[in-house]
Amino acid sequence: MKPTLLISKKVIAEYGPRLNDILANAPRQIELLPYAPDLQLTPAAIDNIEAAYYSRDIWEGTEKSALSPAAQAFWSILDRTHNMKWVAVYSAGTDQKRYQDAMKRGMRLTTGAGAQADAVGLAAAAGVLALARGIPYWLSAQRRREWSPLRGKDVPPDIPGQIAAIVGIGYIGKVIARVLHATGMKTIGIRRNVAPAEHFDQVLPPSALDSLLPTCDWLVIACPLTPDTRNLIDTRRLALMKPGAGIANIARGEIIDENALADALKAKRLRHAYLDVFNTEPLPPESPLWDLSNVLISPHNAGASTGTYARGVEIFLRNLENYLNAKALENEASVE
Amino acid sequence: MKPTLLISKKVIAEYGPRLNDILANAPRQIELLPYAPDLQLTPAAIDNIEAAYYSRDIWEGTEKSALSPAAQAFWSILDRTHNMKWVAVYSAGTDQKRYQDAMKRGMRLTTGAGAQADAVGLAAAAGVLALARGIPYWLSAQRRREWSPLRGKDVPPDIPGQIAAIVGIGYIGKVIARVLHATGMKTIGIRRNVAPAEHFDQVLPPSALDSLLPTCDWLVIACPLTPDTRNLIDTRRLALMKPGAGIANIARGEIIDENALADALKAKRLRHAYLDVFNTEPLPPESPLWDLSNVLISPHNAGASTGTYARGVEIFLRNLENYLNAKALENEASVE
Repeated sequence: MKPTLLISKKVIAEYGPRLNDILANAPRQIELLPYAPDLQLTPAAIDNIEAAYYSRDIWEGTEKSALSPAAQAFWSILDRTHNMKWVAVYSAGTDQKRYQDAMKRGMRLTTGAGAQADAVGLAAAAGVLALARGIPYWLSAQRRREWSPLRGKDVPPDIPGQIAAIVGIGYIGKVIARVLHATGMKTIGIRRNVAPAEHFDQVLPPSALDSLLPTCDWLVIACPLTPDTRNLIDTRRLALMKPGAGIANIARGEIIDENALADALKAKRLRHAYLDVFNTEPLPPESPLWDLSNVLISPHNAGASTGTYARGVEIFLRNLENYLNAKALENEASVE
Repeated sequence: MKPTLLISKKVIAEYGPRLNDILANAPRQIELLPYAPDLQLTPAAIDNIEAAYYSRDIWEGTEKSALSPAAQAFWSILDRTHNMKWVAVYSAGTDQKRYQDAMKRGMRLTTGAGAQADAVGLAAAAGVLALARGIPYWLSAQRRREWSPLRGKDVPPDIPGQIAAIVGIGYIGKVIARVLHATGMKTIGIRRNVAPAEHFDQVLPPSALDSLLPTCDWLVIACPLTPDTRNLIDTRRLALMKPGAGIANIARGEIIDENALADALKAKRLRHAYLDVFNTEPLPPESPLWDLSNVLISPHNAGASTGTYARGVEIFLRNLENYLNAKALENEASVE
C-alpha cells in the first residue's frame, strides 16, 4: 500500500490535472485519499495517511467556539493517525491548539499565510479609513433618511500627518502600511527584527511600544498570537494610548484585553475601533461591543475574498512539490 | 476713503496679525471691512468694496437648496456692489450660478481648490474600500447583534487587479488614485490633457470613456461640473458599465443621471455606490437612494476635516498678497 495524502474532493475535482502532474513527476509515490465528511476509513488506511491538506472548503463554517461538521470529521481522522508527517492548513495563524498539538506530535505544519493577506490588510485599511472619515455615522443617519452632515466639533481630524503604529510586519502588516501610507499617515512598524521595511516610515522593537503609544493616532494589530503577544495591549497599555486614538485588530482577540478595550471605547477615551477578532467567537450577544456606535465589527470575516481559496491551494501545491522532492517547505511553522 | 476687503470677523480675529502684515507691506492700500450677518452698509460703503472673501465660516450651513443666513447676507451685499474686482471663495467648484454670475459681472474669482482635496479624496477612497470589503453589510448585521460572515456567493471580489476609472485628475482625483493604486487596483484617469500622471497606470481622453466603461470595476467621478460634464454618465453610459461594477461620486450630482443610477442600483446591475452629492441637496426624503442597502450616502460632507478651514484661509492669504502686488492669482476661475 502506498502512503496517502488526505485531500478534499473539491480540491481534487478542481485541481486534478495539476495534482496528478505533481504526483507523476515526484521521485516517490503518494496516493490521493479523497476526503468528504462521510469518509469511513479502516485503522490500516488511517495509518497509511502521510500528509493532509486542511483546505478552506473543509474549514468553512468553523468558528473559534466549534469546528464545522466537515472540519470535525477531518480532525478526528488526523487525531487517529500514527504516521502523519505533514499537514498543510489554509489559515495564516498557527495559534490554534490543534495545530500546536499536531506539531507537538511530530507533524510538520505549513500555513496558507499570504493567501488572504490582501483581503485582511485591505479590510483593516477600509475599517480605519471608514472610521476616520465618519462612514458609520453617515450610515446611521442614512437609515433614518436624515441629511445630517458632520459639522463643528464633530468634524473628523485630518488624516494626513496622523501616526499609525502597526504591530507586526508580516504579509498583512505590509498591505496595511502601504495603504495607510498612501493616505498621508506616518506608518511605524513594530517587530522584533527592526530592519527597515517598505511603506514604513520607521520600524521599532516591541520595547518601544510604551513610549510610542501616547503619540499614535492609530494602533493596528497585525501580528500572530504567541505567548509574547497574548494580552500585549493590556489595561496599562490601553491607558497609555493618546486620548482620541483609534484601534484596529484583524489579528487575534487575545492580543487586546477586550473588557478594558470596551471600557475605553464606551468612555470615548478611545475614539473608535474596528474589530474583526474577539476573545470568544462568535462574539456573544451580551458583549457590550455590539452596541457601541464607535465600534465597527466584522465577524472574523476580514479574509473573505473570492481569490483566497485559490491562492491557498497554490501555496499547498507548491509545498506538495517541495515535500515530495524533500525541499524546504514554504510557510513552515514551529511550536510556540 | 480707501477701498475695502469684506472679510469675516472670525478670520480677522484668527488671522489679524498675518492680515495686517500683508496689508502693511502692500504697494497700495486696502482696508478690512469686518463682515458679520448683521452688518449694515451705506451705498457708498458698498461701492467702496473692492474684494471679498467668502470663507468657510460664512458658508457653513449652506445647502444647494438654500444659503445659510450668514451666506445670504454676504451675497446680498455682493449683489449690490459696483466696484468689486475680486471675490475669493472657500469652495473648490465654480459651478454655482452666483459664482458664474459674479465672473460675468466682471469680478475675478479664485477658489479654495486643494484645501479639502485630501478630505474629499480620502472619503472617496474610504467609500470605495468600505463597499468593496463589505463594511455596510457588516454594520447592518452588527445593529442586529448578528454574527453573520459573508460566505459563498456573498464573498466580495478580490480588490487587487480591479480597474478603477477616475474621471478628473485634479487635486482630488490624484488623492483617490494614490490610495486606490496602493490597494492593488489599476487606476485609469480620464481628462482632456492626456499627459501621464503619478499613481495613474494610464490616462485617457474623455472620448475613450465609452470603450473603457465595460471593463471597469469602479467609476469614480472627481471632475468639475461644467457644460461638458453635466449628465456625462447618462442612461446610455450607465448601461455600458460592467455588470457588478461600483460607482463613487464626490463631485457633483448633476454629472450622473440620478434616476437611472438609482434604477441600476435597485436592479443590482451595479453592485454598489458611494454618493456624497446629489441633484437636489439635501437629498429629498422621497429619494429611493436612501433605502438601498447597496448605497452609501454622505450628506455632501466628504470635505469635512479639521484642517479644511485653515488651509482655505492660507490659499486666500497667499492670493491677497498676490492681488495687492498685481501678481497672478492662484486657483483663478473663468466663466464656463
